[in-house]
Amino acid sequence: MRMVDLIELKKNNKELDEKQIHFIIDGYVHERIPDYQISALLMAICFNGLTSKETALLTKEMEESGDIIDLSPISGIKVDKHSTGGVGDKTSLVLGPIVAACGAKVAKMSGRGLGHTGGTLDKLESIPGLSINKTKTEFIQQVNDVGLAIIGQSASLVPADKKLYALRDVTATVSCIPLIASSIMSKKLASGADTILLDVKYGKGAFMQTKEDAIKLAQTMIDIGKQCHKDTRATISNMNQPLGKAIGNTLEVIEAIETLQGHGPDDLEQLCLQAGSTMLVQAHLYEHEKEAYDALKEVIKNGKGLIKFKEMVKAQGGDVSYIENPDKFERARVIIELPSLKTGYVKSLEARTLGIVTMKLGGGRMTKDEDIDHRVGLILHKKIGDYVIEGESLLQVHASKSVSQELIDELYQSYEIVEELIEKPVLIEEILK
Amino acid sequence: MRMVDLIELKKNNKELDEKQIHFIIDGYVHERIPDYQISALLMAICFNGLTSKETALLTKEMEESGDIIDLSPISGIKVDKHSTGGVGDKTSLVLGPIVAACGAKVAKMSGRGLGHTGGTLDKLESIPGLSINKTKTEFIQQVNDVGLAIIGQSASLVPADKKLYALRDVTATVSCIPLIASSIMSKKLASGADTILLDVKYGKGAFMQTKEDAIKLAQTMIDIGKQCHKDTRATISNMNQPLGKAIGNTLEVIEAIETLQGHGPDDLEQLCLQAGSTMLVQAHLYEHEKEAYDALKEVIKNGKGLIKFKEMVKAQGGDVSYIENPDKFERARVIIELPSLKTGYVKSLEARTLGIVTMKLGGGRMTKDEDIDHRVGLILHKKIGDYVIEGESLLQVHASKSVSQELIDELYQSYEIVEELIEKPVLIEEILK
Repeated sequence: MRMVDLIELKKNNKELDEKQIHFIIDGYVHERIPDYQISALLMAICFNGLTSKETALLTKEMEESGDIIDLSPISGIKVDKHSTGGVGDKTSLVLGPIVAACGAKVAKMSGRGLGHTGGTLDKLESIPGLSINKTKTEFIQQVNDVGLAIIGQSASLVPADKKLYALRDVTATVSCIPLIASSIMSKKLASGADTILLDVKYGKGAFMQTKEDAIKLAQTMIDIGKQCHKDTRATISNMNQPLGKAIGNTLEVIEAIETLQGHGPDDLEQLCLQAGSTMLVQAHLYEHEKEAYDALKEVIKNGKGLIKFKEMVKAQGGDVSYIENPDKFERARVIIELPSLKTGYVKSLEARTLGIVTMKLGGGRMTKDEDIDHRVGLILHKKIGDYVIEGESLLQVHASKSVSQELIDELYQSYEIVEELIEKPVLIEEILK
Repeated sequence: MRMVDLIELKKNNKELDEKQIHFIIDGYVHERIPDYQISALLMAICFNGLTSKETALLTKEMEESGDIIDLSPISGIKVDKHSTGGVGDKTSLVLGPIVAACGAKVAKMSGRGLGHTGGTLDKLESIPGLSINKTKTEFIQQVNDVGLAIIGQSASLVPADKKLYALRDVTATVSCIPLIASSIMSKKLASGADTILLDVKYGKGAFMQTKEDAIKLAQTMIDIGKQCHKDTRATISNMNQPLGKAIGNTLEVIEAIETLQGHGPDDLEQLCLQAGSTMLVQAHLYEHEKEAYDALKEVIKNGKGLIKFKEMVKAQGGDVSYIENPDKFERARVIIELPSLKTGYVKSLEARTLGIVTMKLGGGRMTKDEDIDHRVGLILHKKIGDYVIEGESLLQVHASKSVSQELIDELYQSYEIVEELIEKPVLIEEILK
């Protein structure tokens, strides 16, 4: 078999078979096939796509390129959830604890933030003492004991994805649905959970720009799940504005605690309750989503969700007193308000810009190895549909030093304020399975 | 400027400008841009094509990536001709001498054969003593003295094409008209002639499979020529069967000599006379192609073309006695005939297979560094439209050792013989300018 012939096949829109896809992925991971042949193939895939069968085969080959986590020593059904990433997305910090409090086993491997989107690991590390590094044995032990663990992805998980992603990033082959789907699903499958819930976001702050593309991506991933006999469902949610009010690591942890206390932002709470209901049904703990929803509301009300979060923080070495008293969190040195320049309704809010400003404040990273400042970020006082009076604050900036006029301008430009009444957007648009 | 953004532009079918194309080619030649980004770009070009302007800019950048030959010390109009390559294509060996004998200056840099197609340099080297290596000064001197020189392409000519071609060859990005056109035209432009005649072949033995593609390629190259203010014309010729009767280096040289003596195969003579007429008009030596055609016929008849060939051979150190007496050429040890298994008309003849068989006999190379046996090859007794009686020989095989049954089978399979009358195909289909 010659790689050049396989590229030619895909260029001519022919379907690759199992042996051929194995030859490609195994050859690439073991450095028998050079980057320049893979990048040509990836570009041909961007144009011609992959069939459903090819996408599943590719995902399977990628999954099997490294370690596969065996979660069978954990009793019960292990649920997993993945978000395609957004600005202000602290869902896992709320969803994990409430779902675990209702009896599901949450063994989650998470990632770091890059570019304008944050990462769950960075957020967790805002909590003094908390470690996201665990051996497999410790990880399984914690999930058996507490019902919940969120740790860093093992370096030996899906090496094919690491190589492919790095190459796609520099060859303009990132935005391709079957490649995105196989990248996400190979990691989810290798992480070993029994069920997968995908939160596919679309809009200005998300990877997928349109709802149609988000649905296409979700369906592609569900299709992979089906072919791999794994219960996979997806929510399609709107990320035209950030989720919740806080953006930035410490600020988002505090907002997650508030949500677990029952007084978080509506949109975040709703997303957690809806996604959580689906997960509890997937885990066969409830037959209908309505009952699951009520159960989740209850663990927020009675504080069992918060207790679960504290148990997890403690098990991972974190200082629980910060969760009990969020005022203890170290804050940014400079906190300024951004007064509105006009009166009206917020029509749009550039989530992507707000994410990038947070990154520029030091709260995110451009490249993988940068250090970040957990304290900095934004608190949005006004979101889409809100009424604002001239001079009233749109948002709060948390910075480590004085904020440049350039950033201030970017923040103003991210808000569009109009005279006519604007309705608040729906967050979860569809649930697919 | 970032290469990844330029790949993205081309992926989105946007036009690249002069600065961007310079950034790409200059960066690639100087190893600032890696192969894997270029191959992704090449694949995007295979799908989205290049505009006429982009193609000309790319060609210009490639041309300027290395030495550009200055032929101005040669008096008169320097004509050049390029064939896209075919099986049995010894045109340059006949066309060069007759055109030079009519007063045009032929300063030709040629290539070696690869795969199923032969190369002019390999054919010339069948002549004992002949060298295709000349310094620029010697080359120019020879053209001024003799009117004709055919030498090897300088290593420093169009390095961008060498790198790009090697990469295209292993990334399934060879068959793309703007890339083929810029590859050919960059070398022709850098070779410094005043006029260019392209012989674009199509059919089973050629690079372009259909006449439509051949016309598209020819028009793309003429368009590049126009934008570079160089008189560029093209003939579209049928390569569904080999040109002439001989395939293989020594055998083709002998056939070229026979053609210069006035008793070569009709198709080869016609192609040389028609292409030659266009070249003489391009050189402003004749106003109309008809007069040029008659002049060329005359230099075959009066032997001046053959004299010109001998002058060139002598100037390049070759033993002229071989040209005067082709029986001196060393022949292959094994010569066998292939008797027809049926009676009828030859309907088709797989030029590509015949080229590959010649390569397998040792007359061509799979990879660039292989040695070749100049003596081996094929003499076709029957071509398309010819009538053959069962038992009559279809062709003669010239081999260095006994011929395997596998090769015999391949040769039989390359002939299709039918009962109904088959017309002889037209060779030159169109002349474009």
